[in-house]
Amino acid sequence: MSSSYGGYHSQSYAPSAPEQPPYSNYNHTSSSTSNSSSSSFPAGTPQDVIRSFQMVDRDRSGFIDERELHQALSSGFHHFNFRTIRLLLFLFKNPHQPLTIGPKEFAALWSCLGHWRGIFERYDRDRSGKIDPLELRDALYGIGYAVPGSVLQLLLSKYGDGSGRRVELGFDSFVVCGMIIKGLTDKFKEKDTRYTGSATLSYDAFMTMVLPFLVSYD
Amino acid sequence: MSSSYGGYHSQSYAPSAPEQPPYSNYNHTSSSTSNSSSSSFPAGTPQDVIRSFQMVDRDRSGFIDERELHQALSSGFHHFNFRTIRLLLFLFKNPHQPLTIGPKEFAALWSCLGHWRGIFERYDRDRSGKIDPLELRDALYGIGYAVPGSVLQLLLSKYGDGSGRRVELGFDSFVVCGMIIKGLTDKFKEKDTRYTGSATLSYDAFMTMVLPFLVSYD
Repeated sequence: MSSSYGGYHSQSYAPSAPEQPPYSNYNHTSSSTSNSSSSSFPAGTPQDVIRSFQMVDRDRSGFIDERELHQALSSGFHHFNFRTIRLLLFLFKNPHQPLTIGPKEFAALWSCLGHWRGIFERYDRDRSGKIDPLELRDALYGIGYAVPGSVLQLLLSKYGDGSGRRVELGFDSFVVCGMIIKGLTDKFKEKDTRYTGSATLSYDAFMTMVLPFLVSYD
Repeated sequence: MSSSYGGYHSQSYAPSAPEQPPYSNYNHTSSSTSNSSSSSFPAGTPQDVIRSFQMVDRDRSGFIDERELHQALSSGFHHFNFRTIRLLLFLFKNPHQPLTIGPKEFAALWSCLGHWRGIFERYDRDRSGKIDPLELRDALYGIGYAVPGSVLQLLLSKYGDGSGRRVELGFDSFVVCGMIIKGLTDKFKEKDTRYTGSATLSYDAFMTMVLPFLVSYD
């Protein structure tokens, strides 16, 4: 049996999203080699991104916390709810730092969110401002994730508004669902290097993979 | 190398908690054989539990939703925050039902919370009303979960109040942490039947195991 996410590397299937979008940076899987420069913005970071960060980093510490991240993204990008902000913070922060993010992580996050915005707009075909279950399935498939129906249903029962056939996702919940699917699937694939659709995990690795995706709320 | 949670079945280690506490019912792993009676309380359910349920189930539908569950537990047990209620609902509800729970699940949940309350009080040695990181480690070890330090640290960074060495958990967060560790570990162990400390999972099984523990918040 082929892997559920096998479409990712299938030659017969051409994803409409870029092969290596910037959001593959997240959780430091591919950017950990150069984390010495985390105190400054990467070359080419747009001015509005830098401005949004600096506006909230009032003490010029080079790091912003959850509340400041919420403020920065709300003023410049989208008014996310705190659940989403908390998840974004956990997925993008340097794992060796406390609950704050610096310029480099902020730029990666902003770029990632821009990609999810593009995907959302592409798949929200009726321009309703909402993604329905079929549009979600197509959007995830379009970026290379063939997610089983049972998994999508579970995700929608948690994050969707409404019920039954009328479930839909706003941009906020769409970003959360997308990042959870992408993040957990990518983590799983790191352990399934031959793309067989199954992986052997130690208990520690399993717990360490999963916990960052659990969102806390005080 | 022995499993991280190997202590659970070790003869040389006598857990101070009951071997088969009622909360092993949760997520229907051991009670699925008799789910035909989900519309009535199990024999022996304490009167105050029945009263708490009936008080909020005003239309006598036999099912209560998230808001009603919050109200029922708040009046009879503990004033949990909505994050916790949402997680409890997801872990205890019948997987084939919508976001509601019936009398049988409510009784199991109440009993489970009573056990966590007992554990909390036993390990909160200084009676501060809070559990510190060492007390959490001991509490989990006491019920048979030898959780690696790195996993505990990740958990505390999400759910703890305060920072660094001053992190602590109130009862609410303690229940969440305990249920996440117990729930994910038990799920993992179902796939690691020989207790080797590692398991082979299909992608679908992995996602289906993990998603119920992700808490959503609208």
